[in-house]
Amino acid sequence: MGSTIRIIQYGIGPIGAAIVRLITKKENAEIVGAIDIDPAKAGQDLARVVGLEKDLGVVVSNNAEEVLRIPADIVVHSTASYLTDVQDQLTRCLAAGHNVVSSCEELSYPLRKYPEISRTLDDVAKQSGVTLHGTGVNPGFVMDKLALTLSSVCQSVERVSVTRIVDASKRRQPLQKKVGAGMSEKEFRAQVEAGRIKHHGLPESAGLIADGMNIEVDEIAETIEPVIATGDVTTEYLEVKRGEVAGVRQICKGTLRGEEKLHLELQMYVGAHDPADTVRIIGMPDLTLLIPGGTHGDLATVAAVVNAIPAVVQAQPGLKTVADIPVRYYGVF
Amino acid sequence: MGSTIRIIQYGIGPIGAAIVRLITKKENAEIVGAIDIDPAKAGQDLARVVGLEKDLGVVVSNNAEEVLRIPADIVVHSTASYLTDVQDQLTRCLAAGHNVVSSCEELSYPLRKYPEISRTLDDVAKQSGVTLHGTGVNPGFVMDKLALTLSSVCQSVERVSVTRIVDASKRRQPLQKKVGAGMSEKEFRAQVEAGRIKHHGLPESAGLIADGMNIEVDEIAETIEPVIATGDVTTEYLEVKRGEVAGVRQICKGTLRGEEKLHLELQMYVGAHDPADTVRIIGMPDLTLLIPGGTHGDLATVAAVVNAIPAVVQAQPGLKTVADIPVRYYGVF
Repeated sequence: MGSTIRIIQYGIGPIGAAIVRLITKKENAEIVGAIDIDPAKAGQDLARVVGLEKDLGVVVSNNAEEVLRIPADIVVHSTASYLTDVQDQLTRCLAAGHNVVSSCEELSYPLRKYPEISRTLDDVAKQSGVTLHGTGVNPGFVMDKLALTLSSVCQSVERVSVTRIVDASKRRQPLQKKVGAGMSEKEFRAQVEAGRIKHHGLPESAGLIADGMNIEVDEIAETIEPVIATGDVTTEYLEVKRGEVAGVRQICKGTLRGEEKLHLELQMYVGAHDPADTVRIIGMPDLTLLIPGGTHGDLATVAAVVNAIPAVVQAQPGLKTVADIPVRYYGVF
Repeated sequence: MGSTIRIIQYGIGPIGAAIVRLITKKENAEIVGAIDIDPAKAGQDLARVVGLEKDLGVVVSNNAEEVLRIPADIVVHSTASYLTDVQDQLTRCLAAGHNVVSSCEELSYPLRKYPEISRTLDDVAKQSGVTLHGTGVNPGFVMDKLALTLSSVCQSVERVSVTRIVDASKRRQPLQKKVGAGMSEKEFRAQVEAGRIKHHGLPESAGLIADGMNIEVDEIAETIEPVIATGDVTTEYLEVKRGEVAGVRQICKGTLRGEEKLHLELQMYVGAHDPADTVRIIGMPDLTLLIPGGTHGDLATVAAVVNAIPAVVQAQPGLKTVADIPVRYYGVF
């Protein structure tokens, strides 16, 4: 791209911190501001907060309004999963004249669930002449962008299915707990009921595919079921006995008059034998695409967000989804 | 998209004819003109020429200038593989104010081989406020767009390799002959020398990856070798005896100071056992992507060109590559 891209980091949790570390490796990128509401982070140099040795010369602030006055090309936003929780944050960024790329799952495709908020955000972005974009690995890549890209060599598409099998044993402790590993089935179902066991983004991916490829569906619905351990599993962090919950199997279906058109399935459990991402298109021609081992969740989400920066800076104003934006790795911004 | 896309078809060979047949299945697309220099085609209804029953009400003309005066949104161009052979045709289309999507292999990424022609075409397109784009399955998808898309979930990329293995037994007779099936090794090498056995597009894909991901290479070079049959092979069209040439193995390497950074390998031969497209990225993380069976060449090229139409019509003016344009199947234009 040539000139340096000036970046404000909004949200410095585990993903935000990894984003910052990756950005600091880029030649033509400079972090000019950092926002986090955590009192333990505000006032410190950003480097300290994200675990880098050399000072970045950027002090983390909990005053978003102040930081957003800094001249910048883009805000990298990573604070929460629900659009309603971040709508005001995003609006403030856009109104301040900044492009935004966010890891907020519901922002990846808000048009179906939140048509009015989508319109409002699109309007604000266009009025400010900037772009708003949500991405990540899932949603953002495995269950939507990859399937959309594969479909470009199809003359017709009848049905799409994507299965992502993640071996939770190899992931962070919070993820192992989040999928319910070690719980009884009853406890698991109570946690699902309470909304605590749930991966965000499957309906968003379904919407991206349905609307992107013009596959008519009259219902998009999700189910969340436990995967029961068929043997004992021991990970670095916990033990799961045979018969206990090993993890989660979440399925999102898009149907038309009861007929399945889209099938998105996420299995995340400890001890998964054949982790892989698989995209199948039934059409002309039928196509299957495999990523053996699967795309690593955290690494890939951070990469997807950072790699989106140059494309979002260059994109036309408005709310843009992964269907609108070409994606690739940029060695140099 | 809503309103009907008006299309002029330029070139009605096997690919052009298949493009026309696919376009006629689209609700919001209308073919308003057709150009071919073949005297056997000119003057006939386009439907006859492409093998459709119902008249399309479009007469094929060999007068490009005249047809290009018809108001249209895009020209779909499919006449030849070398950019120097089609430069004038493309310039005429652009100057007439038409967007262009073309299956010309060298147009997929002309910036390295033809920097001046690229600049000129980009200028003409921008002056006319239209977009020029080259695509297909290879180049255009397997060895470039797919790898670029996969790389978007990588934090770093060191090397990229793509292998495409095509079982030529299942393809058209001209393709089986084109890969040298049934030749002696001597005859094969003479045909390679004469430029008659050669798949176009590997250096273009290498350029797309190198420049798209900012992977530094100081040389991009190709080799073309025979694949020798290890047993007798009989296809619908020909017989290959053990020891004769079964097909071609074409390798394009991108190197930096002798070190391999890009490896693009195309194997097309009769009797190939495990046809597949495989993309490997060495980086953080390492990733492998497989399409077992491989992406069908002709079907996919036609699909890639037709599916590019809505995106090219909407794209910013200028010469745009698959790195710039988001791709997907469009059920409805």
